[in-house]
This record gives sequence, C-alpha cells and structure tokens, in this order.
Amino acid sequence: MNSDMLVRITHYYRALGRLRAIGLEKVFAHNLADAAGVSATIVRKDFSQLGIHGQKRGGYEIHVLLEKLGEILGKGEVENVIVIGCGRIGKAIMHYSGFEPDGIKVVAGFDTDPLVYSDVSHPIPVYPLSRLEEVMEALSVEVAIITVPESATADCYQRLIDSGIKGVLNFSPVTLKPQVVDGKLKPVVHNINIALELEQIFYELQYPKDAGDRN
Amino acid sequence: MNSDMLVRITHYYRALGRLRAIGLEKVFAHNLADAAGVSATIVRKDFSQLGIHGQKRGGYEIHVLLEKLGEILGKGEVENVIVIGCGRIGKAIMHYSGFEPDGIKVVAGFDTDPLVYSDVSHPIPVYPLSRLEEVMEALSVEVAIITVPESATADCYQRLIDSGIKGVLNFSPVTLKPQVVDGKLKPVVHNINIALELEQIFYELQYPKDAGDRN
Repeated sequence: MNSDMLVRITHYYRALGRLRAIGLEKVFAHNLADAAGVSATIVRKDFSQLGIHGQKRGGYEIHVLLEKLGEILGKGEVENVIVIGCGRIGKAIMHYSGFEPDGIKVVAGFDTDPLVYSDVSHPIPVYPLSRLEEVMEALSVEVAIITVPESATADCYQRLIDSGIKGVLNFSPVTLKPQVVDGKLKPVVHNINIALELEQIFYELQYPKDAGDRN
Repeated sequence: MNSDMLVRITHYYRALGRLRAIGLEKVFAHNLADAAGVSATIVRKDFSQLGIHGQKRGGYEIHVLLEKLGEILGKGEVENVIVIGCGRIGKAIMHYSGFEPDGIKVVAGFDTDPLVYSDVSHPIPVYPLSRLEEVMEALSVEVAIITVPESATADCYQRLIDSGIKGVLNFSPVTLKPQVVDGKLKPVVHNINIALELEQIFYELQYPKDAGDRN
C-alpha cells in the first residue's frame, strides 16, 4: 500500500481506539473521514481495498475494524523506543504519554552529559550513550528518536547504525539518509524538520495551492 | 513547483547559508545533494529548471544561489511566529534558536493557564490566549505553532482562524484541516504527528520498501 494510504489507516486506527474508549460500537465512513482529514469516499475505497465491508446504512463494527487494521499495522505487542539526546525536546518526548494508546513506549533516554544521565528526576531511565548496545539488547529496542543538537547528529546516527538500529525518527535539522542494503533502505529513517515545515508554510502563503492539489 | 522540489530547495538554501558561514564561495551539486538527501543529478535538474546554471567543473557561486533561491522562498524580512500552548513541547520550541538562520523568529507564546503566562522565566513573552488578536496584530504574525493538549486543539484552531491566522504548524495528534475559501485552502496547515511517524516506521520495518521507492 502507498504511504498516503498507510497514513490514513493509522489515523483510522487511532480514531477507532478513541471511539471504542467512549463506548461506541459502530462507526460510519464519515466519522473516520473527519479523523483522517479525507472524504468518506476515500475511507470506503480504502476499506474495500482491504476487503472490509460495512452494512448498508449500518456503518462498520468498531471491534472488527480495530482487529483488521491492527493486523495490517502489526499491533499487539508494545514497541519499545529510545530517545537519544535528553535536551528540551528529548525531555518533552520522554514525558509524553500519548504514544501508549498506539502501543509505543519510550523506555529509555541516552545522553553524553553526566549531569543529564545522573539526574534521577527523569520519568524514565537515562543512560550514558556508552551503554547504548547493552540497553537496546536488554529492552529489545529497534527504533530510536534522535533529539541531539545538529552538531552531534551525524555521530549519533552512525553510532545507532553500528548498534544495529532498525528505525530512526530524527528531529535534528540535519537530514539523515538510509543506506541501501540488499536493495532495501536501512535503517528506516523519518526526518522531522520543524524549521523546514515552517518555511514550507511561509512559501505556501506566498504561492497558494489550489484546493484541487489537496490530498 | 511540487512540494518535493520545494523541500529540496529549502534544504539547499539552508545548506548554502551554512557553507557561506564557514567561508566557502563555490558549491558543487553533490554538496547540496548530500544536504538534501538526493542525487547530484536531481540538484542539477532542479537548478536548470529554475534557470540556474553552474560553470563546467567550477560548481555554483554560493552567493548567486542564495540570492536566487532566497527570491523563490521569499526571504528577506524576518517572519514572526507564535506558539500556542506553553507545555513541554511549546517551551522547547520557544527556547529553540535554530529557526533564526532561516529568518523565522518565535516572538510570543500563549497559554490559558495564569501560572504559565504570569511566569516571567520564559525566553520570550507569554500572554493569556485572550490577548491573541492584539499581539498578532502588534507583531504582524501570520503563522502559529499549536502545541496544546489534544483536548484543547480544536478550540485553539478555531480561535486562531477567527483571529485571521494564515498558517498553522500543528503538533497535536488531532489532524487539523484547512477550509476551502475561494478555491484556496485556508489556513495553510501542516500537521506533525509524532506518534504517527513512529507507527509508520514500525510499519515500514514489517513491510520494507524497495530502495527504488525512495525519493
């Protein structure tokens, strides 16, 4: 499936969890359309492509959707992630509990500064970067969030690759690239560049898109 | 230009500023390719599409590129942005100075909690949300960063729209959608959903993309 569809499905899945939490049993395409920011037609198209069919006027059974989408998204066991760099953004992520409904748990932080890793006030354990491999193995961690300063990003990324990291979410302004190994991209890297997002917004203010371009 | 090209150009522009800062005068396509995570061929294609041509083996003049790309990106005057919601992520953004090389300045924060907006230890002024219109006008602010809790997001977004906001960068897990006004999307909204990025990474670990899918 293409990445747009994947994004929509993760949106559907998150919305379904919340709807079930407030006691609903049925959901309609337009409910999920609102949650994912698309039209109800796209929701129906996605579901029929996945072999999921609702009852006429009856909508969809939430528990059925959760089960099917959960299988697709590989839900079930909790996924442990670590935070590399415990500055302000790293700390904010360590304190954020909003990942848990999605089965993602931030289990440890890493920093090179003894003042940071010896500070016991963190919500989760923080270790010196020298203990990376050890902790990754002990907690079976495959994905790391990089929140180190720009100057330290390249070194941390290499360190993570050497430690066998499989996925990276990078918040530093340095764009990290995967390597091509056996025709696959490794590790899986997503770069979140806040300055870049702001620049794109200012650009789009200058040169507005037509509503038609929306997806 | 499509949004992929825009992302690349903002990457080129940022990299060029840094190269000039360390005293370089010339740059080669592959330098910028590294910075943007693309091939040198794509860099040359982008530049020729923009009517920018380098000298054979001589590379490109950095100051020329900065000027031309700066025009395209509408650089020059500083753009003021505000932060709505001064929790951990909002505070991290208020303290982050990495936007300034890009001509973006976080000039004020807003919060509904008197304990927050009466706290004078913030790096920039923080106001009660009730003063939004007033401050937006005084500082000619067109773009806001939303870092409020999920439950407050929809209200804050509507409040910003009512105040005439033109662009929004949203960090809450609620997906915000622009409205279609005269065939244009208003405001310009970019949603950054950290949980969603992590889920996509875990999904791509299960179902690896081929290197060919990369762009």
